[in-house]
Amino acid sequence: MTKQDHNQQVNDWLSAFDSALGVCNVSEVAELFEEDSYWRDLVSFTWNLKTMEGRGAITEMLHARLSDTKPSNWVLQGDATHADGITEGWLTFETAVSRGKGHLRLKGDKAWTLLTTMVELKGYEEKKGASRESGVEHGAWQGRKNWLERRGEEDADLGYSTQPYCVIIGGGQGGIGLGARMRRLGVPTIIIEKNEHPGDSWRKRYKSLCLHDPVWYDHMPYIPFPDHWPIFSPKDKLGDWLEMYTKIMELNYWSSTTCSSATYDDKAGEWTVKVNRGGEEVVLNPKQLILATGMSAMPNVPEFHGAECFRGDQHHSSKHPGGDSFRGKKCVVIGSNNSAHDICADLWENGADVTMVQRSTTHIAKSDTLMELALGGLYSENAIKNGIDHHMADLVFASVPYKIMHSFHIPVYEQMAERDKDFYDRLKKAGFMLDFGEDGSGLFMKYLRRGSGYYIDVGASELIADGKIKLKSGIAIKEITENAVKFSDGSELPADVIIYATGYSSMNGWAAQLISQDVADKVGKCWGLGSDTAKDPGPWEGELRNMWKPTHQDALWFHGGNLHQSRHYSQFLSLQIKARMEGISTPVYGIGKVHHLS
Amino acid sequence: MTKQDHNQQVNDWLSAFDSALGVCNVSEVAELFEEDSYWRDLVSFTWNLKTMEGRGAITEMLHARLSDTKPSNWVLQGDATHADGITEGWLTFETAVSRGKGHLRLKGDKAWTLLTTMVELKGYEEKKGASRESGVEHGAWQGRKNWLERRGEEDADLGYSTQPYCVIIGGGQGGIGLGARMRRLGVPTIIIEKNEHPGDSWRKRYKSLCLHDPVWYDHMPYIPFPDHWPIFSPKDKLGDWLEMYTKIMELNYWSSTTCSSATYDDKAGEWTVKVNRGGEEVVLNPKQLILATGMSAMPNVPEFHGAECFRGDQHHSSKHPGGDSFRGKKCVVIGSNNSAHDICADLWENGADVTMVQRSTTHIAKSDTLMELALGGLYSENAIKNGIDHHMADLVFASVPYKIMHSFHIPVYEQMAERDKDFYDRLKKAGFMLDFGEDGSGLFMKYLRRGSGYYIDVGASELIADGKIKLKSGIAIKEITENAVKFSDGSELPADVIIYATGYSSMNGWAAQLISQDVADKVGKCWGLGSDTAKDPGPWEGELRNMWKPTHQDALWFHGGNLHQSRHYSQFLSLQIKARMEGISTPVYGIGKVHHLS
Repeated sequence: MTKQDHNQQVNDWLSAFDSALGVCNVSEVAELFEEDSYWRDLVSFTWNLKTMEGRGAITEMLHARLSDTKPSNWVLQGDATHADGITEGWLTFETAVSRGKGHLRLKGDKAWTLLTTMVELKGYEEKKGASRESGVEHGAWQGRKNWLERRGEEDADLGYSTQPYCVIIGGGQGGIGLGARMRRLGVPTIIIEKNEHPGDSWRKRYKSLCLHDPVWYDHMPYIPFPDHWPIFSPKDKLGDWLEMYTKIMELNYWSSTTCSSATYDDKAGEWTVKVNRGGEEVVLNPKQLILATGMSAMPNVPEFHGAECFRGDQHHSSKHPGGDSFRGKKCVVIGSNNSAHDICADLWENGADVTMVQRSTTHIAKSDTLMELALGGLYSENAIKNGIDHHMADLVFASVPYKIMHSFHIPVYEQMAERDKDFYDRLKKAGFMLDFGEDGSGLFMKYLRRGSGYYIDVGASELIADGKIKLKSGIAIKEITENAVKFSDGSELPADVIIYATGYSSMNGWAAQLISQDVADKVGKCWGLGSDTAKDPGPWEGELRNMWKPTHQDALWFHGGNLHQSRHYSQFLSLQIKARMEGISTPVYGIGKVHHLS
Repeated sequence: MTKQDHNQQVNDWLSAFDSALGVCNVSEVAELFEEDSYWRDLVSFTWNLKTMEGRGAITEMLHARLSDTKPSNWVLQGDATHADGITEGWLTFETAVSRGKGHLRLKGDKAWTLLTTMVELKGYEEKKGASRESGVEHGAWQGRKNWLERRGEEDADLGYSTQPYCVIIGGGQGGIGLGARMRRLGVPTIIIEKNEHPGDSWRKRYKSLCLHDPVWYDHMPYIPFPDHWPIFSPKDKLGDWLEMYTKIMELNYWSSTTCSSATYDDKAGEWTVKVNRGGEEVVLNPKQLILATGMSAMPNVPEFHGAECFRGDQHHSSKHPGGDSFRGKKCVVIGSNNSAHDICADLWENGADVTMVQRSTTHIAKSDTLMELALGGLYSENAIKNGIDHHMADLVFASVPYKIMHSFHIPVYEQMAERDKDFYDRLKKAGFMLDFGEDGSGLFMKYLRRGSGYYIDVGASELIADGKIKLKSGIAIKEITENAVKFSDGSELPADVIIYATGYSSMNGWAAQLISQDVADKVGKCWGLGSDTAKDPGPWEGELRNMWKPTHQDALWFHGGNLHQSRHYSQFLSLQIKARMEGISTPVYGIGKVHHLS
């Protein structure tokens, strides 16, 4: 079959699809899908992030949403491609109120996967390109104000004489990127951040920290990194970028500000958010509240018997200042994920005596191998050479339904295990307990399921293999004494310093602290897919719990994830908020039940 | 003829060209050019910016430079195009030491224009894309320094324990963009700036100032403005961008620093540059010194009899603080170019009584018309839609030899005169003296020839037509008294404030001030083409005098121009500097005689 034939195959399907949709013939639409098919919708049809799994679920969604959505104008963009019996194509389409992009995978004349994503709301498009602002009004009139004066007025008024439509708690990369999207959509927004400057949440972390994800994966919306930006951003350099970005995007960024409480008035449809801005108490009344405190905002420290009696320094990994002051000290790092490894290496580089306590198996992926095998096809120089920029890569990524994503990943990690066999053997020989995920699907599935359980190796694993970082593995901690960590087998490790690299709790813990335990419980656990694997209990959810989509608490939203997710999903969160601000009807389809509280 | 035929036409020419070059058969090469042809070379062949006009000049250059340059590998990039009897094509080529891009215009089988530009030096390419730095070295070793520490050390050492290879005097947009190119090429550079922050040179100007050139024309190197950036940047917003840019590009930017003197030691091949850095005297010893003080750094104030007796406020336009404090005051603005118009409008908007004194004819182009007719083909949303980004636009612009550039422009301005006839008639009726340049070639040629003589109308002209800004035109100033300006016809204008919007002097005036009058005279006038039109005396030079290319003073360079020129020509200046730093042989061909001292 030729390229034209594949284009024809997609066009035929789209034409049938469009016709059936146009006359609201749901069963005819359903017939165009395989029995075992997936329709992932990001806002366009469902005002939700939702994957319909199977023909039945697709039918049900269309019965609820088709007449209202009024989809039309399905057009293949570029050429379809074909490999391994699957024909793929990029689409554009419209609904009554929006324009969208989509992606289709056909098996013969039936759809296997369909992705529909909202790009913009009609009549409320971002002002960019040809519709950008002039910057100056030509002509002359008395009393004209310039840009600086107008910015100054906005800064002085917003949160005082005028109220923001939206408040974002947390001004890390997530809050900043989302804030930029709000600015471009004209949604008056204030970002609340406890640190003094944008970027400080990175700057204040341990000295050796660099991003573990590569630059092609990490772009912020609208202003990509220049092409000399290092592959792995050093934390302070990233901090500078975020600070610049906040300024250039003209965000209303309240630094040195903490939030003490937030309550929602159902009747008024409005939040009361109490903040302390550099010593001044301010009450904000936004219509929408977004917690962008990140996946890593609620430190999780297990309660170890006797820990309160420990005489040395003990702190959570998030507070680790860097190894400079621990030269010659006996340091015990409890945990074996990314932070634990980074901190162990940092301590060793600074001449400390370091032991890692590994309590359960860990997935290790060598950075270079991960870049090449897992990310290289979408996020790399090579991808760019093949015409895949990060915008397209994000959509490709989004086009794979979570339900079957592991099956795409398992072969990649089999290849990884093979390629780096010597490395893994040496680690095992040193006593390190390895895994590749319960189903062998590796790092990213672990990240989606539980947000933990892995280390992207940038050097610490060799130190463990060599015994330079000592290892205590496969054993439970019994208690902590004045000067040691004691284990269940009776052994003990003398310690001057204990670092708890024990991860973070679900983001709804932040809602408990800020709003109420009731609201936190009503909303339930954030993140995870319900895969019924370790730390991701079932039932199956189909999408990440509570992230970037409506929750069971009106006007409360959660935003977070890595730089890639924050960049891409802030698009959908910002459009949901903008639609509400403009009074567009946004009936939410298929909001999930809460199965877990945290 | 088909596209293939035009490609063949270019390929045939290139093949013949390459063969003749390869065997150093200069007369055969010359035969490939029209008698009346132009070869513009930006560094690749001449280590100079040089246009060879006519077959004779081309022959002469090749005799001098061909055997040394060793050009090869001429390849058509993309498809050739054809219109009005001219076939055009983009090229790549190499020399012994560099890679380049070129552009060719053929009339039949002969070249009419050829552009050759240096893109990179072999072995000294910028680290970008696939060759970008990692940002982190994977592995672990004791005593490792992080990015922030390394940046801190560079900042502390450079100019003290280590010497920069290059010092740039002037940290406006020109110095900053050039500094960024130096950074990417690994040339240790310090930028000296008198203001407190990058961008202050814009922030400190009059309140209503916005760029008169549109955003597509104004990008800095490497980090383009995002696509919502306003068409005409307000001065403070541009200031913020430059400040961010300086930080993100990691420039060694010495703010609050003034330069008191610079002397060159021929024997040592080194400058002694004395600066005061926030109160501390520092002596720098760079190998190269660049004056990037801009076209607008040496205010020119004509000496008017009696000016010293004037009791009111009098200042040059560059010091105009904005009209706020002049409400109700009688203001006389001497001059009728961009600044004069902007300041008159600003004063009127602030309720002052304003009179413009026009001493000679002025070219006026309405901003919208200018954008559409003169710039739109290369620098606009439309151009982008047609696949012409600013990189390509810069090269198209550069491909038109200065000698014939006016002939490309004259029809544009004829169209402008026609289209805006009513507007021009109203201005004339108000007494305003108009021109379109001596040969009708309009604004940009005036800019190149004399850097003055025009206003891009963003509103002030209507105020003049309406009589809101009063006009005194076509008359000489006789003297200034305690409280008035007196004219040659005996009339006088009472004045509380006099603003001299009388332009700027040649940049070599800055060399006189900083280095010596001898060096300023040795170097001669900067800018201008020798067109033998007003303020641009002949003889013909073919390129702008002294800009971005070797001067008659070893290791002294001038950088400046608008944002477009600074962006594009900083590429060629930085490559010339880098070549010298790396000890690459850089024999300069065809350095011009000095005909004018200022």
